[in-house]
Amino acid sequence: MSAIHLSSPEEYTRLIDQYDTWMFDCDGVLWHGDRLIPGAIEVLSLLREKSTYLQLFSIPIRRLNKIKQEKKVIFVTNNATKSRKSYKGKFDNLGVEASVDEIYGSAYAAAVYISSVMKLPKDKKVYVIGQSGLEEELRDEGVSFIGGTDPADCTIAPFSLETFTLDPDVGAVVCGLDTAINYTKLSKAFQYLTRNPGCQFIATNEDSTYPAAHGLLPGAGAISAPLRYALGKDPIAIGKPAKTMLDCIKAKVHFDPKRTIMVGDRLNTDILFGQAGGVSTLLVLSGITLASEISGPNPSPIVPDYVTSSIADLAVVGK
Amino acid sequence: MSAIHLSSPEEYTRLIDQYDTWMFDCDGVLWHGDRLIPGAIEVLSLLREKSTYLQLFSIPIRRLNKIKQEKKVIFVTNNATKSRKSYKGKFDNLGVEASVDEIYGSAYAAAVYISSVMKLPKDKKVYVIGQSGLEEELRDEGVSFIGGTDPADCTIAPFSLETFTLDPDVGAVVCGLDTAINYTKLSKAFQYLTRNPGCQFIATNEDSTYPAAHGLLPGAGAISAPLRYALGKDPIAIGKPAKTMLDCIKAKVHFDPKRTIMVGDRLNTDILFGQAGGVSTLLVLSGITLASEISGPNPSPIVPDYVTSSIADLAVVGK
Repeated sequence: MSAIHLSSPEEYTRLIDQYDTWMFDCDGVLWHGDRLIPGAIEVLSLLREKSTYLQLFSIPIRRLNKIKQEKKVIFVTNNATKSRKSYKGKFDNLGVEASVDEIYGSAYAAAVYISSVMKLPKDKKVYVIGQSGLEEELRDEGVSFIGGTDPADCTIAPFSLETFTLDPDVGAVVCGLDTAINYTKLSKAFQYLTRNPGCQFIATNEDSTYPAAHGLLPGAGAISAPLRYALGKDPIAIGKPAKTMLDCIKAKVHFDPKRTIMVGDRLNTDILFGQAGGVSTLLVLSGITLASEISGPNPSPIVPDYVTSSIADLAVVGK
Repeated sequence: MSAIHLSSPEEYTRLIDQYDTWMFDCDGVLWHGDRLIPGAIEVLSLLREKSTYLQLFSIPIRRLNKIKQEKKVIFVTNNATKSRKSYKGKFDNLGVEASVDEIYGSAYAAAVYISSVMKLPKDKKVYVIGQSGLEEELRDEGVSFIGGTDPADCTIAPFSLETFTLDPDVGAVVCGLDTAINYTKLSKAFQYLTRNPGCQFIATNEDSTYPAAHGLLPGAGAISAPLRYALGKDPIAIGKPAKTMLDCIKAKVHFDPKRTIMVGDRLNTDILFGQAGGVSTLLVLSGITLASEISGPNPSPIVPDYVTSSIADLAVVGK
């Protein structure tokens, strides 16, 4: 089956009517780095407004107050450099309405995984390759950690095992996008993963690239790749397309998969994630995926339900 | 067929008699980091002395001066942090006899590959992820380069595409072990490999780990892994087990594969390299490979001709 390429106002109207819960990837869908994708705010507002309006049609007036329910908007991001709180700051700065409860990031999901699924004992700790957002989420979940933004580990000075002391309490290495990646961090993480019995190797996400404001840069998957290669072992991946991220959302939000849609720009994370979760999927071509990957001579085996050039296309409904 | 485990003085004597050209891996065979493996010097001297002695038996006295020929000793290392010249310094410091001509390193082989096989035009240059040894070999081969040990690129300050200018003359990225690896180097290399048409991705070697003095650290393969992952593409690998390294040796040294043996500690580099080159192979257990990988319940599919615990075992012949 091939994807439905949306183009007419009727098609966009039908799409909006059909889904109550809208899960959005952010980078490449709502913005590129610090540049908002034109029309994104308008469409999000439209969805939030539309909800009440739609209910009016199908529900007898006397029951309206009881079951009046807004369309849910959820932001699902693999960006692990920011905590949900600091990600909320990004929404604010760009003028996009969002509450912290609507934001699901891979740093948050990794922290929840470590504390609630892996159940890392309280006297154990995590060695972090990652930025302050990941540290913040670990702290909020009560997970002790070392490494990360510690200036002692943020160095390109030579690393030597002679002056390194293995901390026997490190029970996991968690690895996210870290633009201060260096040989000291990789070497320490490698020691923990090879010398501490049972030490778990966790990646916030496996995105190969990261859409920055002016182009693509190596993503979180590239940061864990040295360990993956040196160990000959894949990490437990948390973010999209992994189910862990979905479990995290399900624990907090009730949604009907039949009336839920995942909107994203990346086939092997966003669209796979939606499909694995049994929800519908809309691919936008404003980010990583090229139109040729969907309709070219060698299309991707990952086929979204719908395709449109940008989230802005949905704004036609509000006009 | 399984490997022959050498143990008796007779077996070691036969081995030495059987081979004229001895190719040695260094790290894990002759030394660990800066610690010499006991007996290594003795065995290398024995081989060098033995040659003349052996010839005396088989050659009529009157022809002796004409065809008298020493046993060849060659050092084949994937260590790309050092040039052959600086590697010679390491031999000197550890008291191991060697001439620069006997040393074949992956930095040298990479430089030869770029200048002689790839034939990078003289007005083009290479972006280096690597250390001074790699730069030295490139310089000696007349290959222009940027990156590497340039202080501007040896930083963990944030990298931004806004302040980056793509150099259109970069025709290759060469990646070796670089203990000053950072996000700026990875991001620049990624830009060249994705934005400069035809830019080649070359790895000096693909060793997953590196045997330092006090244990294992991530190897050169782990340094190129982020690019490999972000690009979804493997580099052209130069060092063992790749044929490029052998081509480099063949261009300089004549040897009879039937009377040549490769001695190494790593199955997937040294032993594979020997086998690909059609020479015999001796695995020493003084480095990476464990005895259980050869004779355990799940042995490696890579089977050397001979196995011994350490190069020092051969010293028994000289006693």
